[in-house]
Amino acid sequence: METFFSFLERRVDDCASLLCVGLDPHISDLPEATAAAALDFSLRIVRETSSCAAAFKPNAAFFEFFGPEGWDALKQLIAAIAEESARLGSMIPVILDAKRGDIASTAEAYAKSAFERLGADAITLNPYLGRDSIEPFLGYPEKGAFLLCKTSNPGASDLQDLAVARSPLTEDFRTPSVPLYVHVAELARAWNTRDNIGLVVGATQPEALARVRAAAPELWFLSPGVGPQGGDLATALKAGLRKDGKGMLINVSRSIARAENPKKAAAALRDEIVNVQRDMNREERKGR
Amino acid sequence: METFFSFLERRVDDCASLLCVGLDPHISDLPEATAAAALDFSLRIVRETSSCAAAFKPNAAFFEFFGPEGWDALKQLIAAIAEESARLGSMIPVILDAKRGDIASTAEAYAKSAFERLGADAITLNPYLGRDSIEPFLGYPEKGAFLLCKTSNPGASDLQDLAVARSPLTEDFRTPSVPLYVHVAELARAWNTRDNIGLVVGATQPEALARVRAAAPELWFLSPGVGPQGGDLATALKAGLRKDGKGMLINVSRSIARAENPKKAAAALRDEIVNVQRDMNREERKGR
Repeated sequence: METFFSFLERRVDDCASLLCVGLDPHISDLPEATAAAALDFSLRIVRETSSCAAAFKPNAAFFEFFGPEGWDALKQLIAAIAEESARLGSMIPVILDAKRGDIASTAEAYAKSAFERLGADAITLNPYLGRDSIEPFLGYPEKGAFLLCKTSNPGASDLQDLAVARSPLTEDFRTPSVPLYVHVAELARAWNTRDNIGLVVGATQPEALARVRAAAPELWFLSPGVGPQGGDLATALKAGLRKDGKGMLINVSRSIARAENPKKAAAALRDEIVNVQRDMNREERKGR
Repeated sequence: METFFSFLERRVDDCASLLCVGLDPHISDLPEATAAAALDFSLRIVRETSSCAAAFKPNAAFFEFFGPEGWDALKQLIAAIAEESARLGSMIPVILDAKRGDIASTAEAYAKSAFERLGADAITLNPYLGRDSIEPFLGYPEKGAFLLCKTSNPGASDLQDLAVARSPLTEDFRTPSVPLYVHVAELARAWNTRDNIGLVVGATQPEALARVRAAAPELWFLSPGVGPQGGDLATALKAGLRKDGKGMLINVSRSIARAENPKKAAAALRDEIVNVQRDMNREERKGR
């Protein structure tokens, strides 16, 4: 059976792109506050950007907002992405940005909801409840789970930047210490026995990206924060890409959705990423 | 305007109970796997236990599981609790156990969904993304937010028990240190400028309860874990109750739902809590 990450890498190769297109139908961007408008908004972005999208990332909140109709729209959107993929002849993974996290028996219900009912290929999860809250999602070997590690919002520093001692239940601070987000990356790497864990690492802080990359050299990152949130694309890629020039999905939502021509905006971003990859390759070859 | 916690305390006084009844329609407990069965299951518990429920806590996962129909059932359930409350002449708060947590603009959509669309009175939130992920919920002065602090599951130790230095961005470990969950309690207390933050603190670890109580003497706790997860009721209450004998909602789900007579099971639990409160009062008076 194919794992999520081999599926993702195939798509990345097919479209020569590391661009993840976020589908965030903010009410303020919709002509009217209805689930149908949220679906139309998202479908338009899917159609316009599918040729350069390595993945699509709908955010559950903006659909949940519309209650039952929103949930139905989310399901239709994921099905429509599969149809669009079939038309292109290259399946595009869907990462459900839900940031769920609950104790095991409850996490099972969330996992079934996301993977079986909605048909998402991967999900974002919050690691605060620990391994047993992640495990039910990992039980789907062909699905992926991106754990929140270092997020791109200002409040990220409140918990994620705290210096922690590496072993739990000790307050002996002579043991080596790391920021909490680095510890989460280390845990994710240790838990990744089935090649289905990735990490959410914001593109806004290159030093953090580099530290997470050092802690988890082979994991895929999902990196929001380029554009409106202030992350610089080239700097982020240089800090976060794996040695093979992959391993990082650059998520962009608003700059594409609000562009006059979303298709051109997505293509321009895809090309910008390819250029940075090319430069890095060249420097790598020079360095040898 | 009344705050969530004054609303809750009024209900606690009305029913002389600290029992929060969890509404978790696990598929394995339903006669058939449908949203209608989940709703029926939950409504039956509401009717049978309303007289001794200080609050009801539906878990979003078990409704989300059924997609649009589940979301509709959850809305109906919350409306039905309001009707049952009206019948009793004492409003019973609804705490939506959703454990959400996202960056600010997205958190707004979750807050609107929970408070405006579904009509919940309070919600559980994950603090990993920091203050700005909580802020949109706190913007509703009459609603409550319970932050996950120390959960009752085995994986809780993976992150929550880690020893952290109190100030972020420092790795100088000569500064005083506390387990991450204590730091979360301290943050919650500092963020609680509008009297609408509580904490989720599992009943399974009395020492942790006592430490959180010491860190946040006045906050309300929502405490799951009594019963199947192994928490002892009297020990938990003694460790977690405030000096005024309140400040703690004991959440019970399965032991009530799976009891032959849920009404009796809930009443027995309510009485057990009252007895512990009485004993503590007596000891307190002796101690003076």
